[in-house]
Amino acid sequence: MIPRLHVPADLGRGLVVGLSPGQAHYLRNVLRLDAGAALRLFNARDGEFEARIDGIGKGWASVAVGERRRAPEPAFDLWLIFAPVKRARLDYLVEKATELGVVALQPVWTRRTIVERVNLDRLAANAVEAAEQSERLSVPRIGEPLPLERLLREWQPERRLLVCAENGPAAPLAAALSTVSPPLAVLVGPEGGFDETELDALRELPFVTAVGLGPRVLRADTAALAALAVVQAVAGDWVRPRHSQRPPRDSE
Amino acid sequence: MIPRLHVPADLGRGLVVGLSPGQAHYLRNVLRLDAGAALRLFNARDGEFEARIDGIGKGWASVAVGERRRAPEPAFDLWLIFAPVKRARLDYLVEKATELGVVALQPVWTRRTIVERVNLDRLAANAVEAAEQSERLSVPRIGEPLPLERLLREWQPERRLLVCAENGPAAPLAAALSTVSPPLAVLVGPEGGFDETELDALRELPFVTAVGLGPRVLRADTAALAALAVVQAVAGDWVRPRHSQRPPRDSE
Repeated sequence: MIPRLHVPADLGRGLVVGLSPGQAHYLRNVLRLDAGAALRLFNARDGEFEARIDGIGKGWASVAVGERRRAPEPAFDLWLIFAPVKRARLDYLVEKATELGVVALQPVWTRRTIVERVNLDRLAANAVEAAEQSERLSVPRIGEPLPLERLLREWQPERRLLVCAENGPAAPLAAALSTVSPPLAVLVGPEGGFDETELDALRELPFVTAVGLGPRVLRADTAALAALAVVQAVAGDWVRPRHSQRPPRDSE
Repeated sequence: MIPRLHVPADLGRGLVVGLSPGQAHYLRNVLRLDAGAALRLFNARDGEFEARIDGIGKGWASVAVGERRRAPEPAFDLWLIFAPVKRARLDYLVEKATELGVVALQPVWTRRTIVERVNLDRLAANAVEAAEQSERLSVPRIGEPLPLERLLREWQPERRLLVCAENGPAAPLAAALSTVSPPLAVLVGPEGGFDETELDALRELPFVTAVGLGPRVLRADTAALAALAVVQAVAGDWVRPRHSQRPPRDSE
């Protein structure tokens, strides 16, 4: 397997780019690679490129960029807004949401949110790693945590907000998806769910569709992943061909 | 929150049932409950009942069964067949698959499966706990691990096998679901995917539908959970009302 790394710097054939100290450490000390080893570098702006290690040492690596393998492509515009859960489950949630193609991850504080702090660096590192493994070109944006009321006050109403409602009236998610169009966001409450008045207030908002996720009580992280999978499968990008089926190069 | 426990023994109003030593320990030492405390007991055969602790001591508890709250109900007949993954991910997979309503969990050995042993007791404990938390009445059956070839040789062809294909031709899952009817099973390969010849052979079988899960490369556990969520939402039981919305008692 050729390592695939996300690089925020400009990528283009013939450029030489520097990697981060963490990436250099990974290539040198974990994978034990040396100058000449093949890599792939990508970002959402420029696409994905073949590359080779040009020089590598303790805490640094320079990489020569070769042919482009994939052109940039538009992403299906889906956000996940979630009340933070405990650390191991949050790691998992970020990994899975990234694999499922969200373009933004936004933590929110709701009335019953128990977790009090979110390590955004850790979230970002998990998102980059999942993007590298899942053959995405983009890495999800991660927002600073916000109180739910503020998020709703500043909401751009052209984005439909699918609120996973544990109680009260809600359309089954697959049916609801036939009544909405992108851009979309999924909102999932904390373990223990939304406060009743909070959920009632959400339902009143003109850009909200309350959706139901079946007869069982789902954990917050399960609800998030299940909702994202269904959105992608029914209304999102699951009809596109897989990246792993692409030929090794595109012919620009 | 009233503790909700799965009890394999017969349940019915007026019966007194014994709990397992583990359940007694949980009620006495973790929740610090005493005689008289309210519980709920359930199993798939008899439904869910109100109950009270009758007596409790070190390693034992007897419980008096009261009114029935929920009658038994048929489950949507969906199996998950999976190549075992590493322990933390396997715990998570069993928890999520149980929340998503599978009636059976079947480990299989494929050519590229790396994990060599599966702790079935641990799988079963995770499944029971997830059933208790998710308001299911049933606990998924867990099969002894089998080689994939043997599973396929003994397959009952009236059950449609949805094979999550990482490569080659495959219908997008949501579209494929309009062409099949229950009973259903989802088969997910190991980390690294099926061997090419293995996947080709699967595709040849008359009871197999190869399905695609979108353009990104998904981890094995993500693929399993995403596929189960989509099956339930599009063709399964997500159109039923939630159990948490039920009135506190049914009137038998």
